[in-house]
Amino acid sequence: MRQTRQASFESGVLPSGIISLFLLYLLEIHLNYVTTPAPAVDIEALVARRAQGFSLEAPFYSSQEVFDLDIEAIFLNHWLFCAAEAEIPEAGDFVTIDIGSFSVIILRDDDEGIRAFHNVCRHRGSRLLKDPCGAIGNLVCPYHQWTYRTDGSLAFADSQPPTFDRGQFGLKSVNVRTVGGLIFICAAADAPADFEEVAGVIEPFLTHYDLKNTKVAHQIDLVEEGNWKLVMENNRECYHCDGAHPELVTAYFPLFGYSADDITPRLRPLFERYQTASANLERACAVLQFPRDERRELDTRVTGFQVSHLPLDGDGASFGPNGSAVCKKLLGSISEPSFGDVSIHMQPNSWFHILSDHAVVFRVFPVAPGKSVVRTTWLVHSDAVEGVDYDVESLTDVWRATNEQDRELVGGCQRGVSDPGYIPGPYSLVEDDVEAFANWYVNRLRAHLAV
Amino acid sequence: MRQTRQASFESGVLPSGIISLFLLYLLEIHLNYVTTPAPAVDIEALVARRAQGFSLEAPFYSSQEVFDLDIEAIFLNHWLFCAAEAEIPEAGDFVTIDIGSFSVIILRDDDEGIRAFHNVCRHRGSRLLKDPCGAIGNLVCPYHQWTYRTDGSLAFADSQPPTFDRGQFGLKSVNVRTVGGLIFICAAADAPADFEEVAGVIEPFLTHYDLKNTKVAHQIDLVEEGNWKLVMENNRECYHCDGAHPELVTAYFPLFGYSADDITPRLRPLFERYQTASANLERACAVLQFPRDERRELDTRVTGFQVSHLPLDGDGASFGPNGSAVCKKLLGSISEPSFGDVSIHMQPNSWFHILSDHAVVFRVFPVAPGKSVVRTTWLVHSDAVEGVDYDVESLTDVWRATNEQDRELVGGCQRGVSDPGYIPGPYSLVEDDVEAFANWYVNRLRAHLAV
Amino acid sequence: MRQTRQASFESGVLPSGIISLFLLYLLEIHLNYVTTPAPAVDIEALVARRAQGFSLEAPFYSSQEVFDLDIEAIFLNHWLFCAAEAEIPEAGDFVTIDIGSFSVIILRDDDEGIRAFHNVCRHRGSRLLKDPCGAIGNLVCPYHQWTYRTDGSLAFADSQPPTFDRGQFGLKSVNVRTVGGLIFICAAADAPADFEEVAGVIEPFLTHYDLKNTKVAHQIDLVEEGNWKLVMENNRECYHCDGAHPELVTAYFPLFGYSADDITPRLRPLFERYQTASANLERACAVLQFPRDERRELDTRVTGFQVSHLPLDGDGASFGPNGSAVCKKLLGSISEPSFGDVSIHMQPNSWFHILSDHAVVFRVFPVAPGKSVVRTTWLVHSDAVEGVDYDVESLTDVWRATNEQDRELVGGCQRGVSDPGYIPGPYSLVEDDVEAFANWYVNRLRAHLAV
Repeated sequence: MRQTRQASFESGVLPSGIISLFLLYLLEIHLNYVTTPAPAVDIEALVARRAQGFSLEAPFYSSQEVFDLDIEAIFLNHWLFCAAEAEIPEAGDFVTIDIGSFSVIILRDDDEGIRAFHNVCRHRGSRLLKDPCGAIGNLVCPYHQWTYRTDGSLAFADSQPPTFDRGQFGLKSVNVRTVGGLIFICAAADAPADFEEVAGVIEPFLTHYDLKNTKVAHQIDLVEEGNWKLVMENNRECYHCDGAHPELVTAYFPLFGYSADDITPRLRPLFERYQTASANLERACAVLQFPRDERRELDTRVTGFQVSHLPLDGDGASFGPNGSAVCKKLLGSISEPSFGDVSIHMQPNSWFHILSDHAVVFRVFPVAPGKSVVRTTWLVHSDAVEGVDYDVESLTDVWRATNEQDRELVGGCQRGVSDPGYIPGPYSLVEDDVEAFANWYVNRLRAHLAV
Repeated sequence: MRQTRQASFESGVLPSGIISLFLLYLLEIHLNYVTTPAPAVDIEALVARRAQGFSLEAPFYSSQEVFDLDIEAIFLNHWLFCAAEAEIPEAGDFVTIDIGSFSVIILRDDDEGIRAFHNVCRHRGSRLLKDPCGAIGNLVCPYHQWTYRTDGSLAFADSQPPTFDRGQFGLKSVNVRTVGGLIFICAAADAPADFEEVAGVIEPFLTHYDLKNTKVAHQIDLVEEGNWKLVMENNRECYHCDGAHPELVTAYFPLFGYSADDITPRLRPLFERYQTASANLERACAVLQFPRDERRELDTRVTGFQVSHLPLDGDGASFGPNGSAVCKKLLGSISEPSFGDVSIHMQPNSWFHILSDHAVVFRVFPVAPGKSVVRTTWLVHSDAVEGVDYDVESLTDVWRATNEQDRELVGGCQRGVSDPGYIPGPYSLVEDDVEAFANWYVNRLRAHLAV
Repeated sequence: MRQTRQASFESGVLPSGIISLFLLYLLEIHLNYVTTPAPAVDIEALVARRAQGFSLEAPFYSSQEVFDLDIEAIFLNHWLFCAAEAEIPEAGDFVTIDIGSFSVIILRDDDEGIRAFHNVCRHRGSRLLKDPCGAIGNLVCPYHQWTYRTDGSLAFADSQPPTFDRGQFGLKSVNVRTVGGLIFICAAADAPADFEEVAGVIEPFLTHYDLKNTKVAHQIDLVEEGNWKLVMENNRECYHCDGAHPELVTAYFPLFGYSADDITPRLRPLFERYQTASANLERACAVLQFPRDERRELDTRVTGFQVSHLPLDGDGASFGPNGSAVCKKLLGSISEPSFGDVSIHMQPNSWFHILSDHAVVFRVFPVAPGKSVVRTTWLVHSDAVEGVDYDVESLTDVWRATNEQDRELVGGCQRGVSDPGYIPGPYSLVEDDVEAFANWYVNRLRAHLAV
């Protein structure tokens, strides 16, 4: 703070205030966050009066009360994608994830099974693992060396009275379930039961890609200065893509929200290109007996989700220049490079793009009312060799750029909706998935508050 | 934080703890701010028991509740000086100002008129303009390209249903009024009506300077670690000037609070110098038919203000060494260099010094209970040439130094009044304008709370 | 924040996410703190249901309400060690200490007496002294030069009305009491009376060391990312020493919590070494008529304390390699280098190690629910010459390392107990002083709340 302030003053000697103004602006962002007021909010009333067809009211994005409720009602009571199996390939490999002030360990145990535990020692509460990922033999608390087996049971605790029962002090476990190589957790005692059904729909779309047999080519955590819901809403529409995502849009057919009747003569060639690509994708799917039943159940069930399979423009293979491939080794049993994009959206916090040559998976973790972390992981075939089959830069180009562009948009939106001058505005025709997210979210709050 | 902490530790190897202690002290400032507790405050009781003649109680300076009330009752319901017309000379030029979490755009529209809008898109609430100043053709939202004309009307929004009525989604406007080249805004639906009368008193003092025909020579935003009221109170007395402002005091006659009876033999020569300067100023004013009716209505009306016209010491021209000029081109129709200082104080957040050769205008924007921004702008004649008629360093020397000295004082005062050991103390004989500010402030809160 | 975020993104181009993940992790620590929610807490209920034998519940460590109560009930109502007399040897020397948002000046007055005052001007509340230590003639407020004598009386205040009574505006004083060269303060109107009795027990242990006749060889302020109680609890057990403090453990006999019956053949040689050292210490004490009545009254009185006198391992002299001395000049009337460690623990916030060749004194100051400052001061004989009798690095090695190790442990514990997954765990057999601290703390809260 001091630094920024001094800079702001010293820059004053420049022949223009612009620099000091800009430094102030940077500071502003910080201050806006640090000083976000948390006025008492009547959440029931907020939820009750939510206006269909309009963006959510400000407190949903800026109040501490709503944030705390989101953690409890949404993040601790629903299934969350937290990691790909490829992130913990060996026994003892772990990742830790932070959801607000919750920290959860996801671990591959000695029997190659996957476990999840609260990242808190049962003695005096020390964090067990502070690194975001790594490998361990046993879980040894850094404070007093209480030692837990990879199944969470307490193996060792020094200087205890004879009455001490180790059986009472195993790690608190968290529900865990994998779907086609993707690890989901749920911290609730009774996790939503419909997840099995959803898994049953999604798994067939993943089977051919054999994601278990991939490796992490790259991973980035991006801190965004916005509420987690703004990050999700931004992900759920491409209304902003033309203006914001030059790299991304080249991969997709710019026909979002168009129906056949909307096709003007100008759009005709594009539309025909799209029809050809769709037909080719149909054929390729038939060969593999790849499922074609796309589903959109974003706000009609507890475990809201959508799965679609879109052809890509240009070469139609991947996110490389003009739709070209970014990895030479194709995933699983996919032999046709132009296999489109299997796109999966899951409530509350994840989305996935699975292509013939790589998969990129995303999840959003809330940090504070005005802060979120987006973790992006790029997966390639286990046998793909960096520098030979792929290079990290080309592999990650499009989504590194896109994420950074989205970070800017989300930050601007957080500042705007935190401004008392904000009033909810109307969704456009192409923001139906944003509204579906908002519907799902508000309905889940209603269900939680009704209990 | 981490850095400061590590530094604090590493510096421990120095043969003295002083450095680590100092780093800690810097950190302390930051922590005091970050951790300022916002205990529930009974504002009605606070306001009711305010003791005349004494500084305000601590919560007025440190509580989030009072800060939020200040934004609503004071900043959104009164006229605020926000910019000089010279800051937005051309159609499309804009500045943005931040008042707490409010952001307002001040814009010169296509008809050269001045407009003010809330800096929030009517779609999903994104900030429209993130830069503190600049120029635009239309106002295009960076998120989904909703496009507003400079009159605030919505010109374009893509992908809308046939029922969409653009007329319903123009930018929310803010009242705006200029007075002799100074731009004032008021965000209230019904802005204080007495502003017209006040403008009528002030305008004649400004006319001869023709501030519309000036340019911005320099502007600085200074972040102060203190409540906006401490910044204002500090501005409203020169009790601290002798001790704190060596550069500033040379310009003024050190006779604040003196009456003719107080003139001791020691003060006689000084007093005679003052009388001569006053007589000269009288003559110069007579020539120009310059108004002489100074007014002090700081706490006796809604739009509290004071206007005075003081002779300066030394050369009596400006803030240069020994009262010398700092710009060769005089403002407007002023031909006499030694024309004193037209000093205007306005509640809640601005003050002005207008001299023969330049004007320097100040406004305070609240950021948080313990943070404010002081924006200072130096104006010179439009035809003045940098490096020929003036140089930025000499022009700004006195007030850059003075602002920085005041920043230190205000920061020390914020830390002190946030200390539970603080109890309000008595105003001295020369702090009547501080008390007038406090009176005005408390009365405006009372009026607001009574509604 | 901005920096960290950009770094987090740019580091993304590295062939592994580890670095960006680690940066995120650093950020996380910061965010966890900045965003620590302060949910309304029913303190009475918390205190009432405290479970004996288990660590305290989360809100004791993370809530703002409890923190505010701790400042009031514990820190302002008990005697606190704040400085050694050697820190202010001359008239006019001062130190300032910060306890939450309280700042207190400890000053040696013109009569060589020691005084303590709230660090707030009686005029408009400015901080009087901003430096953590220094020397002054009078206390002159930087704002308007109100001038106080070193006895706190107001000597001068300019521009006052004839009715102004300086006698009404002296500095608010704080109780102060020295014990064998250690300065204690209490801000309460009626300070705990049993301090006299405790002082009577401790003083004889200090007399021979003549701490008044020492000088500050080094001082470090270490900011820890943990609640003050976690810092204290960490100090009150050596259960973590084997795992965390390789440097420290060499000095002590690793027999904590052992009784004679626990001595296995493997431990026999160690135990005999211990018995010899104890016998030698007995003899040395007899020669000096040094008190032998160790006392442990940590949770059985208002001014909880413990004093013990332990022999050291190896050379048995001090904290140098293999127990060797770190200063050639012995303290006071101590002539036997192997004089063990007089260890004093005081509630709520201090501990002391006094050895033949130096003393190291510690106090913890709360900053925020998740932040504390540990100030460590190393004292050597006034005549000891740096570079000849001692060098700062060897003198401070063990405790610089130990403090930094404890900082890591406390930070990990704060994050863990702030995790909703935390539940209080059982104390081991060797954590009885931790439990005594918790007992004392909870009982003091009960006493305060009962009033």
